[in-house]
Amino acid sequence: MERRLIDDDLETLKQRITVMGALAEERVNASVDALVRGDRAQLRSVIEGDKALNDLQMEIDGQCFRLLALQHPVAVDLRFVVAATKLTVDLERVGDLAVNIAETASRYLEHPPIKPLIDLPRMSRIAQQMLSTALHSFLTRSVPLAQSVLEWDDSLDELKSQVFRELLTFMLGDAQTIEPGTDLILIARHIERIGDHATNIAEDAIFIVEARDPRHGRPAVNGP
Amino acid sequence: MERRLIDDDLETLKQRITVMGALAEERVNASVDALVRGDRAQLRSVIEGDKALNDLQMEIDGQCFRLLALQHPVAVDLRFVVAATKLTVDLERVGDLAVNIAETASRYLEHPPIKPLIDLPRMSRIAQQMLSTALHSFLTRSVPLAQSVLEWDDSLDELKSQVFRELLTFMLGDAQTIEPGTDLILIARHIERIGDHATNIAEDAIFIVEARDPRHGRPAVNGP
Repeated sequence: MERRLIDDDLETLKQRITVMGALAEERVNASVDALVRGDRAQLRSVIEGDKALNDLQMEIDGQCFRLLALQHPVAVDLRFVVAATKLTVDLERVGDLAVNIAETASRYLEHPPIKPLIDLPRMSRIAQQMLSTALHSFLTRSVPLAQSVLEWDDSLDELKSQVFRELLTFMLGDAQTIEPGTDLILIARHIERIGDHATNIAEDAIFIVEARDPRHGRPAVNGP
Repeated sequence: MERRLIDDDLETLKQRITVMGALAEERVNASVDALVRGDRAQLRSVIEGDKALNDLQMEIDGQCFRLLALQHPVAVDLRFVVAATKLTVDLERVGDLAVNIAETASRYLEHPPIKPLIDLPRMSRIAQQMLSTALHSFLTRSVPLAQSVLEWDDSLDELKSQVFRELLTFMLGDAQTIEPGTDLILIARHIERIGDHATNIAEDAIFIVEARDPRHGRPAVNGP
């Protein structure tokens, strides 16, 4: 089969997206790991280390716009390149959420801890797996993989409501736990939002392949 | 000056974006207004009325992809069309946040109220003004207007921290207020996120004009 000029550019684009995705995942992992171990130095390094991800976003966006302007991709390639400019926004936001987690965790660590962090580490593991699977579905254009991410999102939501209820019970029983409890509720929401970004990426993966938006259940685009 | 074929398509695109923006604003306004007046019927209508916004997102995305595939826009037009596919995501999320506000408000109204809702209505007015100004800057490609949105974001953040502190004081003083107080904290965060989406839109407006991402302070794109 003939290899087109655009294939090389798309390949480069995929490689840089892989790097950006790995970096975003790594930052989420570092923030929750530091919370669990009470490691303030690592929290600070997450808070201060946002630049690499921002730089990658700019670089990848630049590649996408050059590709659109010079190579005129169509159909599935066009959808892939436009979706890539959205994906970088999602990954950059995941990095911001890792910073939000680290900031809230720093404040949380100033109080006596509330029992073993409830289910936050479990929520974080699910969110990270959603993110990694969503990226894989995006790069390999796999609809079944993307679908599996959408299903996990419900269990993450449920786990968050459970964490929320459990923390409220602590807070109602002991006023000492209100401030740290509120911080853990906020961290649970940050993690849930990481799951939301993974869901966005999975939905974009389905859109690339099927030219329909899975949120709305029918074809979004009648284009070429 | 010669009118290009693409200008008509861009004009149609702008008109539909204006409609979608007005609808998103209207839903935010309805959710907070219903919270203030304790109007459960209006909360329900916000919760159930998400379809029009989703339909508009699909329609506008379809227009963008057809434009990209058939007209090959370049430079500022290319950036405008790609940014429009991101803008619809932001506006759709604003609609989701209006639903989140309405859901949380429904739960809040089941408890005795905490004094006059703190500063939530004021936060909501700022967020709505940010949204409306951001849309205007996007459609008129006005960098000064977009910059003003970025400045408001700081005052919204500050107001949210103040609301947060004030509610924690209530919660620490009276255990009865913990559940409704937590709901108001969540509503404050939903409103803050509406401000974040307005900020995204303003940043995209700057990107369209200047081909640089204001988040990172230097040119993002060297393309044509």
